[in-house]
Amino acid sequence: MQVEALPSAVRSAVQSHRCGGRRTGLVPTMGALHVGHVSLLDAARSECDFVIATIFVNPMQFGPHEDFERYPRTLEQDLQRCEAAGVDLVFTPETSRMYAPGAESIVSLTGLTRKLEGRHRPGHFDGVTTVVAKLFNITVPDRAYFGQKDYQQQLIIRRMASDLDWGVEIVTCPIVREDDGLALSSRNRYLSPAEREKSLSLSRALSLAQDLAQSGSESPDSIARRMQQLISGVEGIDPDYAVVVDCDTLDPLVDRPKRAVALIAVRIGKTRLIDNQILRFR
Amino acid sequence: MQVEALPSAVRSAVQSHRCGGRRTGLVPTMGALHVGHVSLLDAARSECDFVIATIFVNPMQFGPHEDFERYPRTLEQDLQRCEAAGVDLVFTPETSRMYAPGAESIVSLTGLTRKLEGRHRPGHFDGVTTVVAKLFNITVPDRAYFGQKDYQQQLIIRRMASDLDWGVEIVTCPIVREDDGLALSSRNRYLSPAEREKSLSLSRALSLAQDLAQSGSESPDSIARRMQQLISGVEGIDPDYAVVVDCDTLDPLVDRPKRAVALIAVRIGKTRLIDNQILRFR
Repeated sequence: MQVEALPSAVRSAVQSHRCGGRRTGLVPTMGALHVGHVSLLDAARSECDFVIATIFVNPMQFGPHEDFERYPRTLEQDLQRCEAAGVDLVFTPETSRMYAPGAESIVSLTGLTRKLEGRHRPGHFDGVTTVVAKLFNITVPDRAYFGQKDYQQQLIIRRMASDLDWGVEIVTCPIVREDDGLALSSRNRYLSPAEREKSLSLSRALSLAQDLAQSGSESPDSIARRMQQLISGVEGIDPDYAVVVDCDTLDPLVDRPKRAVALIAVRIGKTRLIDNQILRFR
Repeated sequence: MQVEALPSAVRSAVQSHRCGGRRTGLVPTMGALHVGHVSLLDAARSECDFVIATIFVNPMQFGPHEDFERYPRTLEQDLQRCEAAGVDLVFTPETSRMYAPGAESIVSLTGLTRKLEGRHRPGHFDGVTTVVAKLFNITVPDRAYFGQKDYQQQLIIRRMASDLDWGVEIVTCPIVREDDGLALSSRNRYLSPAEREKSLSLSRALSLAQDLAQSGSESPDSIARRMQQLISGVEGIDPDYAVVVDCDTLDPLVDRPKRAVALIAVRIGKTRLIDNQILRFR
């Protein structure tokens, strides 16, 4: 497994592997890899000839009062996980190279990024789209893999890749959960045992939503209110939002649709958690 | 010479030519090709193995009261010029494909685009950077060729290509002028004979600036004022700006530098003209 910090080294490695119809797969990460990330690496490995993982804690996607400083950095373990998953090349750039002095170019979306997470984390998605644009340009992937856990993010990346003609296929992999339902996240390690217990209300609220969609006749709005009630009933949870919205636009739904997505974001102590589930309506 | 309207067709043509170290050169144009454009095609032809010209009158870079509707469209002649220049592939996309319904992604710069042309044509450079980003992604060039005539544009494209890691080398080709000094522009054909005569004041003002930089001891500001006086003295010319600024940042200069760029933009009747010259100071 090759480990490179310089874009130029990645570029030449990619170029020598590209010819003859060999497919390049990209898995962009911020490190602190868990089994959810490994599922992305596995998917890339099974579908592509040359698999690139990137590990970069991107300062541009953190707000000024967010957890950039304390975000877990576990490079050695991450490289072991990449190696075990059969990754061909890991790109671990320096921040000073990714954002050189004088850099002023931004990739942004004018609609999808204003909703939900975008409202609660201003500037977050500009950081995501800009860094992913750079990673697309450096690695020139045929496919790029993202987790459904960051539902809005994968939607935005899809839109961006299509709008700006990267010709990359975006693959969204299912959420990986602990046995008790908690969606895997690098931020779960911030949780105290008591907070860890409270965090289960997210997946419980999503299960409730799925049950109501399947069995009842409640409207999307009414289902969202039931999720909000469940979450608000847990002391020490501060909800940012709990909604049931259109899978593609994230807009509110008037009638009961065939499919929708339930999305939740909360703060538990100093930790912010998100989760989601596609709902299928009866 | 291959002519393609679909990004997918361009992509596969490029891919089959890329292997084995063959270099792809891109010359993005809005058509209405003149000898200035041909000099870009010639440069690409002499330096690259596979030359792509694009012809697309990009609505996103025109303001609401600008000349998008009446911008000259001369596709047949343009294709002949491309063929004569030895172009391998011409990409002539439809507007509806370049800006599909729902597209909302923008590439923008936060500094360089706010100055000079950016101030006088709000949104113009967002249109330029977004469409060039798309063209880079569709054609994946090793080199891309721009004219110095649009000085600020080539500076912005350089910044963008570097910031977002396209790995493309930006080549800026010299301004091509008529015998009497007028810089070639697709918009020159808008000029009446009387306006054509007045338009010579741009290149005259730039020559004056070069003389003053070489022979005198005047400051950049003082030289700019002399250019402004010369232009303002011509009836029927409405100057947008005439400045002498830093070649890289376009910022004002306090002392006499070694090099600077003199930039002029004016309106003559309904036509807007720009011109520039690198000044070398004694």
